[in-house]
Amino acid sequence: MTSNWPPGDPAMIFLDAAATTPVRREVLDAMWPYLTGGFGNPSSHHTLGEAAAAALAQARRTVADVLGCRPGEVVFTSGGTEADNLAVKGVALARQAANPLLDRVVISAVEHPAVEESARYLERFHGFSVDVVPVDSTGRVTPEALAGALRPETALVSIMYANNEVGTIQPIAALADAARAHGIPFHTDAVQAAGWLPLDTRPLGVDAMSISGHKLGAPKGCGLLFVRSRTRLEPVIHGGGQERGRRSGTENVAGAVGLATALTLARDRQAGEQARVAALRDRFIAAVLAGVPDAVLTGHPSERLPSVASFCFPGTSGESVLLELERRGVVCSSGSACAAGSDAPSAVLTAMGVPAEVAQTAVRFSFDAAVTREDLDAAAAAVQAAVAGIRNLGAGQGR
Amino acid sequence: MTSNWPPGDPAMIFLDAAATTPVRREVLDAMWPYLTGGFGNPSSHHTLGEAAAAALAQARRTVADVLGCRPGEVVFTSGGTEADNLAVKGVALARQAANPLLDRVVISAVEHPAVEESARYLERFHGFSVDVVPVDSTGRVTPEALAGALRPETALVSIMYANNEVGTIQPIAALADAARAHGIPFHTDAVQAAGWLPLDTRPLGVDAMSISGHKLGAPKGCGLLFVRSRTRLEPVIHGGGQERGRRSGTENVAGAVGLATALTLARDRQAGEQARVAALRDRFIAAVLAGVPDAVLTGHPSERLPSVASFCFPGTSGESVLLELERRGVVCSSGSACAAGSDAPSAVLTAMGVPAEVAQTAVRFSFDAAVTREDLDAAAAAVQAAVAGIRNLGAGQGR
Repeated sequence: MTSNWPPGDPAMIFLDAAATTPVRREVLDAMWPYLTGGFGNPSSHHTLGEAAAAALAQARRTVADVLGCRPGEVVFTSGGTEADNLAVKGVALARQAANPLLDRVVISAVEHPAVEESARYLERFHGFSVDVVPVDSTGRVTPEALAGALRPETALVSIMYANNEVGTIQPIAALADAARAHGIPFHTDAVQAAGWLPLDTRPLGVDAMSISGHKLGAPKGCGLLFVRSRTRLEPVIHGGGQERGRRSGTENVAGAVGLATALTLARDRQAGEQARVAALRDRFIAAVLAGVPDAVLTGHPSERLPSVASFCFPGTSGESVLLELERRGVVCSSGSACAAGSDAPSAVLTAMGVPAEVAQTAVRFSFDAAVTREDLDAAAAAVQAAVAGIRNLGAGQGR
Repeated sequence: MTSNWPPGDPAMIFLDAAATTPVRREVLDAMWPYLTGGFGNPSSHHTLGEAAAAALAQARRTVADVLGCRPGEVVFTSGGTEADNLAVKGVALARQAANPLLDRVVISAVEHPAVEESARYLERFHGFSVDVVPVDSTGRVTPEALAGALRPETALVSIMYANNEVGTIQPIAALADAARAHGIPFHTDAVQAAGWLPLDTRPLGVDAMSISGHKLGAPKGCGLLFVRSRTRLEPVIHGGGQERGRRSGTENVAGAVGLATALTLARDRQAGEQARVAALRDRFIAAVLAGVPDAVLTGHPSERLPSVASFCFPGTSGESVLLELERRGVVCSSGSACAAGSDAPSAVLTAMGVPAEVAQTAVRFSFDAAVTREDLDAAAAAVQAAVAGIRNLGAGQGR
């Protein structure tokens, strides 16, 4: 078990941290007062409400400190998906309301469905066109490719910081620059990047950035959107006007406090752990490539999250490898959790030029910061044995 | 303190339960496994994910049992506001997509902003007209008034179950009947009703119903929408397709389990407590009306939530009464928490015909199920003293 909290099944090596992570002990401790005695509604004008409002404000300042922004630029949401919806729909609709000529959005070919489907909603219900920028075989968008997709009618660009299936990191600062040169707001989905990559929004140059709590040790049900001031934004959830009118609904105080705590913890440990985990990742990748004939590393060889090693194993199926691995005590996934169980080949991999029959053999290993060399050595051995077993079985059956 | 969990300030009488409630101990206990070791993503196809999916499925069955519906008719959301947004926008947009002639929605004059602002969004961005049905002086919508507002172009009716400021209960079954007679889906915001009124959707005859967790002993950040099968629904939050495509984003498993637990607890205690609390409410109302000259009960005299007593105290300001009451150890509010601190008179009260200068003197007392006779007797005495003090001060200042 790569996480020391909570105590899980010690016989299990959990390598699916990109799907979700356990709540960190310090996060739960920080949330606890707001799950018990400090239960006020931050909008209430009495001491109990004011205490909740103060906790929320402190959480917002803490987040702002990590993101290098003003507290007023942080909008707490129910998660990364809602934050993506708010960024894509909210910016596009608000800009179109101010200027009806703006009716296009640009996304990459490897976006998470939260961005992709938000763009498709704009297409279906608001007459937008969606321009999809291709990626190269490593999953990267080049600033030149982005610049070629920008039009005078482009209301927004949304390109993820790091990919959830293959871990490829985009050159966000250069991409944001390209959008800024045309005066177009730039959003990035940093759900997978958070906890591993720098989140200071100033050098990144982004106008909006989404983060999810449960990917970095906060609970499910909390997230946030950074939105640079003066960026027009139509809410996705309307109502009582919380979050300065940008996201209505009684604030999840405990969730906001937990998310702020998790972000601080991640930043403080990041420098040391990033290099350590990246080295373990490279060792694991080398072991798998050496031990499994024809194994293919997917994604960028170096510009990738320290926490993600993703492969295709031609001649197998991803699902059968997963089953074999779980039998051997290694838990991972075929790609995104959202698409688990789907028979369709990964859209991310096919966008990178991976043939469909190879894409269907994808397996993703994703680590949290507590991952150990022993775990990964054991996992690499399990992968070798699992793939060999499946291939032998296939050969024995004359396939 | 009216709640035995968590232990709060024992010197404080908390009469603002309509704003929010403490998390019940049993709820927190039920959530705990999913905040710790059982942290899987329900979409993941391994044992950890499957355990989370099983917990989510069990929570859905539990909710369905309380609501008298099928588990597939329950959509978990981040709260009541999101559920209202999903119902109003989701049904209206989906019906309009199927039939472009449908371009009107009907709401009452006393809806929560989550419904009102969702309808206004449809008006601003989707060309809908919003028809607002008036209420009588007790805050009630009559089936005749509703029937008069229905048009062939009406896509949806949304009328709240019980009002958040004055506690008035709407004749939901009769109103839903009127809508059904014209084949129009009927949504009700049951955020304040949940925990006090019957939630079985069959006798109510509603097609959609919103519930918020934190109003009934579950944490902030969880809620749900009941949507009758075959009701068309366009999501508000798009993405990975969770909740059968109706609400994307990794499910807040702990929140769903907590909400299911809170709903069950509320149902099981409801029969006994409803009458007890209603009697206490009536005793409190009588004491306030007897002790405070010119005090006016707002809302319906009998068709009101057991948990809400709301007044206007002419010759005061609501805010000054709140401050005086808090100094005397009684915590309540001027109306909805969302509008706290606003100078505008309550739209609910003005819709009921209360003059603006009287509406500005509104004070709402709202109880949780643990409220005691002693607390309310003390609160009534405090109200009498607080209002008298403010009026004397005003008289002394020649006002």
